[in-house]
Amino acid sequence: MSVEPLTNLSKLCLHTITTRPWSIEEAAAKYSKAGIGGITVWREALEKRDPATIGQMLSDQGLTIVSLCRGGFFSHREPEKRQSAIDENRKIIDEAAALGAPLIVLVCGADPNQMLEESRRQIVDGIGSILPHAEACGIRLAIEPLHPMYADDRSAINTLKQANDACEQLQSEWIGVVVDVYHVWWDPDLRREIKRSGHNNRLFAFHVCDWKTPTTDLLLDRGLMGEGCIPIRTIRGWMEESGFTGYNEVEIFSTIYWEQNQDRFLEKIKKAYLENT
Amino acid sequence: MSVEPLTNLSKLCLHTITTRPWSIEEAAAKYSKAGIGGITVWREALEKRDPATIGQMLSDQGLTIVSLCRGGFFSHREPEKRQSAIDENRKIIDEAAALGAPLIVLVCGADPNQMLEESRRQIVDGIGSILPHAEACGIRLAIEPLHPMYADDRSAINTLKQANDACEQLQSEWIGVVVDVYHVWWDPDLRREIKRSGHNNRLFAFHVCDWKTPTTDLLLDRGLMGEGCIPIRTIRGWMEESGFTGYNEVEIFSTIYWEQNQDRFLEKIKKAYLENT
Repeated sequence: MSVEPLTNLSKLCLHTITTRPWSIEEAAAKYSKAGIGGITVWREALEKRDPATIGQMLSDQGLTIVSLCRGGFFSHREPEKRQSAIDENRKIIDEAAALGAPLIVLVCGADPNQMLEESRRQIVDGIGSILPHAEACGIRLAIEPLHPMYADDRSAINTLKQANDACEQLQSEWIGVVVDVYHVWWDPDLRREIKRSGHNNRLFAFHVCDWKTPTTDLLLDRGLMGEGCIPIRTIRGWMEESGFTGYNEVEIFSTIYWEQNQDRFLEKIKKAYLENT
Repeated sequence: MSVEPLTNLSKLCLHTITTRPWSIEEAAAKYSKAGIGGITVWREALEKRDPATIGQMLSDQGLTIVSLCRGGFFSHREPEKRQSAIDENRKIIDEAAALGAPLIVLVCGADPNQMLEESRRQIVDGIGSILPHAEACGIRLAIEPLHPMYADDRSAINTLKQANDACEQLQSEWIGVVVDVYHVWWDPDLRREIKRSGHNNRLFAFHVCDWKTPTTDLLLDRGLMGEGCIPIRTIRGWMEESGFTGYNEVEIFSTIYWEQNQDRFLEKIKKAYLENT
């Protein structure tokens, strides 16, 4: 399968966490000036700010708000914590609505003090509890399967198959999936499960970065596209053959890049996007 | 499913790498004195030694040699490197025969410079090339699926399903699988695939340790059984319900434990084995 390179930045969306040192105001101005089409807002970027005001500011900068990151963390052995998570996720839905974000990314959660099966049941229950509110607010929810190295305390949903299965249990057009190449690139069933998501209109978002060799930190050592071994363009092709027409979202957590000059980093991102995505 | 605790150390096998600071001579004496039944020898422990002499020494200490760690690393983009790997694995088979180890653990390899599918094909080809020699020497080979966080350069076989599929392609009673809880605990298909391995007489080995939260290093931060979130006893139950009667092998790579007094560490291992395995 041959996939054409991207020729412009209109479908590039940047996650605010990628350029973490920048405030959201600074990020918006820089992204806009760079000709980037979309922005995904991390909640930490909204701290001490009014979401509606930020939403208007982003719109004024010509940026499309792609999603709000992130809700979820439904799995807890203690019932009170599960209820708190549900309450918090309802607030996040309100926040997304005020911001003008049509989608919330769900990192579903896991509790190392119980079996994964139990965490998985709690995830489906938790999402089921907030779906009516999401639908009422016109906000879509996307389950992001996380790499199995996060199965202890971040997500008990670790493959796209599991995410698709959860969507089937939940039976709503407001629930879908995020395909983040970092989490799923290794999966031999990936192309088949992307097709399955697409067939059911559940391909809500696509995140890119790269897996470096060696990777020196489980969380904060992601690479720029092209620095690692993930066949990013091939996977983008699988998304597109399955009907995905949304943004290609660059989401990089990297202490190495956060310590660098962010303007220069932004230039590197643009280059890596055009050459290796 | 209720699984009975282990009541003695006769089925405990220690990997020499677990107590890495000890030479193999020291390790053998200590394991034997501790009443441990089995030993798995890492090749690094054999450096500058004659395998047959070491095999005799281990036998004299009353230790059963469970396996030799490790062969594999068949995946390379360059044909010469693939051939070197095959030659090296033939030598490892000879080494196992001299040592008196009936089994070689295969960490199958991966090359970040090519697609995983290609690495996987090379693995099956590589194993196929060495199987006749293994059979001639009476040595069994066991594919160890590695955690997906090692898919870049250690193994393109990352689930037990993939290992079982590879065994089916290879069609030999001399090829089977290693189930290492660290690599496969997160897999929703684990119990089913263990049953499949057992049904085909391919459950060759069982490795235990634990997954700590947080894990601070991708390679060298494994925990003692009970320190993490892996349901080790439950998985042991799945092995036993599928017909496994072999050793429970403790394989811990940990800079933290290697820096400690190894005699005290051995006591901790014994305790963790009886209480949490």
